[in-house]
Amino acid sequence: MILAVMRTVVCLCMWLSVHRVSGTYVPQEMNRTLQNLRQHYKISNQDLFDGQHVFPREPLRGKMESNMLFMGGVLEAYEKLFGHMLRQLPTPSPQLAISKDKAGTSTAGPSASGDVRSNLMKVLQKIKELKRHRYQEQVKLLQGLQNLKHIEMDNLKIQSKALWELPWIYEEASSLADNVMRRKRRRRQTRTKTRPGV
Amino acid sequence: MILAVMRTVVCLCMWLSVHRVSGTYVPQEMNRTLQNLRQHYKISNQDLFDGQHVFPREPLRGKMESNMLFMGGVLEAYEKLFGHMLRQLPTPSPQLAISKDKAGTSTAGPSASGDVRSNLMKVLQKIKELKRHRYQEQVKLLQGLQNLKHIEMDNLKIQSKALWELPWIYEEASSLADNVMRRKRRRRQTRTKTRPGV
Repeated sequence: MILAVMRTVVCLCMWLSVHRVSGTYVPQEMNRTLQNLRQHYKISNQDLFDGQHVFPREPLRGKMESNMLFMGGVLEAYEKLFGHMLRQLPTPSPQLAISKDKAGTSTAGPSASGDVRSNLMKVLQKIKELKRHRYQEQVKLLQGLQNLKHIEMDNLKIQSKALWELPWIYEEASSLADNVMRRKRRRRQTRTKTRPGV
Repeated sequence: MILAVMRTVVCLCMWLSVHRVSGTYVPQEMNRTLQNLRQHYKISNQDLFDGQHVFPREPLRGKMESNMLFMGGVLEAYEKLFGHMLRQLPTPSPQLAISKDKAGTSTAGPSASGDVRSNLMKVLQKIKELKRHRYQEQVKLLQGLQNLKHIEMDNLKIQSKALWELPWIYEEASSLADNVMRRKRRRRQTRTKTRPGV
């Protein structure tokens, strides 16, 4: 009995840690949609509360700009994941659509699948909007970083040009790091000077 | 004749644009090593000056933090490219190494290849040092972003957990974007107030 109560308390604590959301930005409608989707993509409590996050929160303890960039990456990952989940759903056949129209209602299978599709699309839309309106700069930078992965490493022309470009890159990378370091130092000094009693 | 002069002038301008390096951070030794490597990885002037960069410079017109991150990505790309170029070189056979030791000198082939290998390793070392000493934070963030690419999209457990995590992520992403916007606005206002004559 005590064990069962303790397990419930632990589960509740973990649930709260997963749902530590003040709710200022997540609309009620979106919460409802997610609740419905969770019914379809159901897993055991043991799996749900295994202490592992899909999206780690550690990188979000750094600077705002870095956090924004990481969040941009997370939103992109959600976009891909939901796109993948949509493609996994059975395609609604025209026949099923007709029989549904004629009957007014439809069997649980196709209807449930249709609901999941429409709910996934709703949530995907919310993510796309957030990305487009607030994460434009980050998406651009992520794209730039992504393009670096497609450099043709076998190509002699690329190899040669990269050797020619290196002095500029090395110079720029070094001076940039120096400037950032200097700016940090200046800020620390300003903070020390303006702190009362120092 | 005029055409030839004009072509030389254009080539010179382009060469200068590629080599716009003040030389504060690039050691002479590294410049010499690169010069030697360019002899091995030689391409035509037409290819070299086709106006296309391997590493675009556009993203480097943004904020310092973003630039640092992009530069971290560029340094990683260089590391991979040089690693690839090293693997492309013929492996020095023990026989060749012995015959070289006995003769004191060696044929142009293996010696040239050995020089290229040692020069590539020298430059690779410089890049690794710069990355390790000045780009630690960026490398960590890039690793975090990279890990997002390996999310198992087919896994029901991942799909379900991602649905549970979304409210927190959406809330965090929205409030973060709001905070950054507010901070920008405050800075603009401070700048306007402190500007003389405003």
